[in-house]
Amino acid sequence: MSVGRYSATRRWTWELFEPDLGGKLGYYTDWFIMTLIAVNVAMVILETVDALAIAYSGAFYYFELFSVAVFTIEYLGRVWSAVDNPAYEGPITGRLEFASRPLLIVDFLAIIPFYLTVVGVQADLRFLRALRLIRLFRLLKLARYSTAMQSFGLVIEEKKEKLILAFSANLLLLVIASSAMYYIENPHQPEAFSSIPQAFWWGVATLTTVGYGDVHPITPLGQFVGAVVAMLGIGLFALPASILASGFIEQAENDEKSADYCPHCGEKIE
Amino acid sequence: MSVGRYSATRRWTWELFEPDLGGKLGYYTDWFIMTLIAVNVAMVILETVDALAIAYSGAFYYFELFSVAVFTIEYLGRVWSAVDNPAYEGPITGRLEFASRPLLIVDFLAIIPFYLTVVGVQADLRFLRALRLIRLFRLLKLARYSTAMQSFGLVIEEKKEKLILAFSANLLLLVIASSAMYYIENPHQPEAFSSIPQAFWWGVATLTTVGYGDVHPITPLGQFVGAVVAMLGIGLFALPASILASGFIEQAENDEKSADYCPHCGEKIE
Amino acid sequence: MSVGRYSATRRWTWELFEPDLGGKLGYYTDWFIMTLIAVNVAMVILETVDALAIAYSGAFYYFELFSVAVFTIEYLGRVWSAVDNPAYEGPITGRLEFASRPLLIVDFLAIIPFYLTVVGVQADLRFLRALRLIRLFRLLKLARYSTAMQSFGLVIEEKKEKLILAFSANLLLLVIASSAMYYIENPHQPEAFSSIPQAFWWGVATLTTVGYGDVHPITPLGQFVGAVVAMLGIGLFALPASILASGFIEQAENDEKSADYCPHCGEKIE
Amino acid sequence: MSVGRYSATRRWTWELFEPDLGGKLGYYTDWFIMTLIAVNVAMVILETVDALAIAYSGAFYYFELFSVAVFTIEYLGRVWSAVDNPAYEGPITGRLEFASRPLLIVDFLAIIPFYLTVVGVQADLRFLRALRLIRLFRLLKLARYSTAMQSFGLVIEEKKEKLILAFSANLLLLVIASSAMYYIENPHQPEAFSSIPQAFWWGVATLTTVGYGDVHPITPLGQFVGAVVAMLGIGLFALPASILASGFIEQAENDEKSADYCPHCGEKIE
Repeated sequence: MSVGRYSATRRWTWELFEPDLGGKLGYYTDWFIMTLIAVNVAMVILETVDALAIAYSGAFYYFELFSVAVFTIEYLGRVWSAVDNPAYEGPITGRLEFASRPLLIVDFLAIIPFYLTVVGVQADLRFLRALRLIRLFRLLKLARYSTAMQSFGLVIEEKKEKLILAFSANLLLLVIASSAMYYIENPHQPEAFSSIPQAFWWGVATLTTVGYGDVHPITPLGQFVGAVVAMLGIGLFALPASILASGFIEQAENDEKSADYCPHCGEKIE
Repeated sequence: MSVGRYSATRRWTWELFEPDLGGKLGYYTDWFIMTLIAVNVAMVILETVDALAIAYSGAFYYFELFSVAVFTIEYLGRVWSAVDNPAYEGPITGRLEFASRPLLIVDFLAIIPFYLTVVGVQADLRFLRALRLIRLFRLLKLARYSTAMQSFGLVIEEKKEKLILAFSANLLLLVIASSAMYYIENPHQPEAFSSIPQAFWWGVATLTTVGYGDVHPITPLGQFVGAVVAMLGIGLFALPASILASGFIEQAENDEKSADYCPHCGEKIE
Repeated sequence: MSVGRYSATRRWTWELFEPDLGGKLGYYTDWFIMTLIAVNVAMVILETVDALAIAYSGAFYYFELFSVAVFTIEYLGRVWSAVDNPAYEGPITGRLEFASRPLLIVDFLAIIPFYLTVVGVQADLRFLRALRLIRLFRLLKLARYSTAMQSFGLVIEEKKEKLILAFSANLLLLVIASSAMYYIENPHQPEAFSSIPQAFWWGVATLTTVGYGDVHPITPLGQFVGAVVAMLGIGLFALPASILASGFIEQAENDEKSADYCPHCGEKIE
Repeated sequence: MSVGRYSATRRWTWELFEPDLGGKLGYYTDWFIMTLIAVNVAMVILETVDALAIAYSGAFYYFELFSVAVFTIEYLGRVWSAVDNPAYEGPITGRLEFASRPLLIVDFLAIIPFYLTVVGVQADLRFLRALRLIRLFRLLKLARYSTAMQSFGLVIEEKKEKLILAFSANLLLLVIASSAMYYIENPHQPEAFSSIPQAFWWGVATLTTVGYGDVHPITPLGQFVGAVVAMLGIGLFALPASILASGFIEQAENDEKSADYCPHCGEKIE
């Protein structure tokens, strides 16, 4: 009986953290965890504002304690109950396999800095805490079943080859343009164009039309080449935008075609 | 008879300020008010140019008097005659309900700063006067019945879900990119990247390709991450542009199809 | 006979300068004049480079003489022979009417600065000489009959209402954003945001994503508003691009539809 | 027999370097050469970083030796065996004709700087070594047979006339805008707007929305003209993006149509 209760609790725990099963319990837990992640990220962000960090240090600390507690329970609960998932059977191997999934590793890294501080590790764990930001990607799960998300995925899948080619062509343009600019400008601006990798910084700023202005050609030849590159950079926008546009339109037309029946006589209209 | 004359005047006032009734009177009043709003906004703008404010202080003052007078008459007239609108019956509740509509509140806020100055309030009402700029939105009413406006509305309505998802994905990218840049650049530029919210300023300037150049990464790692973010930022343009394009095209095709007839039974397909 | 020869010469002159008549003579003259305009514009541009202006002052001067001579002959010839065009009959009224067409006025303004200098007018005629640049627009005539030019014209004509609305919405956004930024930043940057018209300079640089960086908000509230405006500015690109895209696609589809006949049985396919 | 062995070796060499013949040998050589080019370019790029150039000078040198050796063998092998290609018959004329193809000249220029250094030429050959970057274009060969590459080519071919017209219109706008800005700003910023060609640098930065910020108008009139140009510059993006989008969509529709059958006679319509 105690074994039965144990396995029932484990099964309940699994359902608690598994919104995809369609149960009400998992649905509410999911929303709670998602909200906590969002607020947690807001806290990580606001804590970097010195004025707020000092004024509300207590609130930040207690919210931190609460968050880590909930995330720890969630993490342990999910790993413990993972064996109820047919894909992760076996008390040790199944759990290890489950825990080594990328999302679970992120979840683990999100809570471990706190415990390391507790046991006295003196290293700078600020960067590790930033890992909590990566949990933001879990919010994307909310959009997983939306038709818009599926539509985006299908269009990108459909146009994958063209998008990769457009990206490659731009990368090629970036390498050629930045190298040329290095050879032209380096003798006149040894600081700004100290090497070709450094010139990439100018190249990206120009091709994407961001144009910070911290680095720019000053020689007539450099400015001529820069102008040509900036003009070509417009393709960097035009190509992906037009590829995606054609993808969305084809999709809409296919959707319509698969459902084109005359409402009067019921015959399919081709 | 006096009651009859009173109610006739009120009805006439209502029609005077209600262009949607289709009467000629309302049409001309509407154009007059719209023009006055446009000129008024031009005045608010030009008055901030010191040279003009000093040279034409008298003209500005008298035009102000005239505008406030007209807007006050319009405001009182509309509230008084609101009860002639079946939706706002009841001498007090109807008028209060009418006056609490957002557009009417803006109209009220646009004239009240003048009277507060008159009765001796010494506060800085410059900002309140700027509320008059909000009245600019009333000019959009002119486009209300245009087919272009309706087309825009329909396309945005149709593509709402995709546009929101594209916006959310960009917001997520903004949070991740700005946070990462804070952790990378803060030790080297404690002023420019003093906190994550401050780093958002860099993030938006980069993702939208505005690139003022007041804040930009200076470390090699920061510049590498910045370059990747700038590249990804191109999606910020490509996604909404391609979504809207597909929306406009589908609309045009549906318009055409609405005049299509089934080839099997000859009935019109709507 | 002398009258006949006179009128034959005049008719020949008219055909010489009128490429639209389809004659070989007009065609070659047109190409010669077009080329001369292009080279002339290149000269006006290069002459502003001090080094070149000094080194080749002679060449610039003689080319100037030659250009003005040709343009003067062309101008006088066209005005003199204009009466052979049925639309400009009457020796005086016809020629005056012809000479007062915008393109002819530009042609006149392009040669007159030279003669004013000759007769001793000492004014700064540099700006007037720049009028010669306006003649560049005549080069557009070369594209007049191309199908691409016609296609652009048709698409813009078709989408006129939507493009105007998109432009108006952006203008409205510019006014609201720049005014708001003036009230927010003026107390902290009285120089950069000295007036609302001055703030427009920031507004345009941000909405078009040019982002020179000479003017930008420095207060947290200003940066927040600036970030929102930059985000909204993306619509400035997305709207016209998607409107034009739908225009080009509809056009292509209509072109196809008007010529859709089965190549096997000859029946029209609807 | 020796002649037979010679010509067999030559034939084998030809197939070794000719991936288009479809043989396995050529396929593997091609991948090896392509990879070596990519790594070589990476080396040329990284060698400009002083820290790396000093720390790994030996590795750079030996990799250089190895690359030049392979590229030399490839170059000589291809020229020697070119006569096996029916298009380049004749032991001398055929090989010279083959060696004078642009790609072969680039290949020659990519290896010759090394030998010039060896024989003691003291000139600055850094720029010549940069020619090796041009070999990057050979990587495009990898994409030659991909459907995405063919699709890009067809769309650009199809829309050539419109793209050229859009480009010409922008060039015209650039000339007019930059010249106008020169006449307006030169008296106030003689350095930044020293000549019209110099003003082009501002014009390109503005029309492409790069906006470095090193040069920008400071007079009210200059800023007004600059704002108008920046607004018009949006067309620089909208036109090519929408032209390409319509090209991709028409292409997709034609692909679909190629499998359509006439509803009247049932024949396939190609």
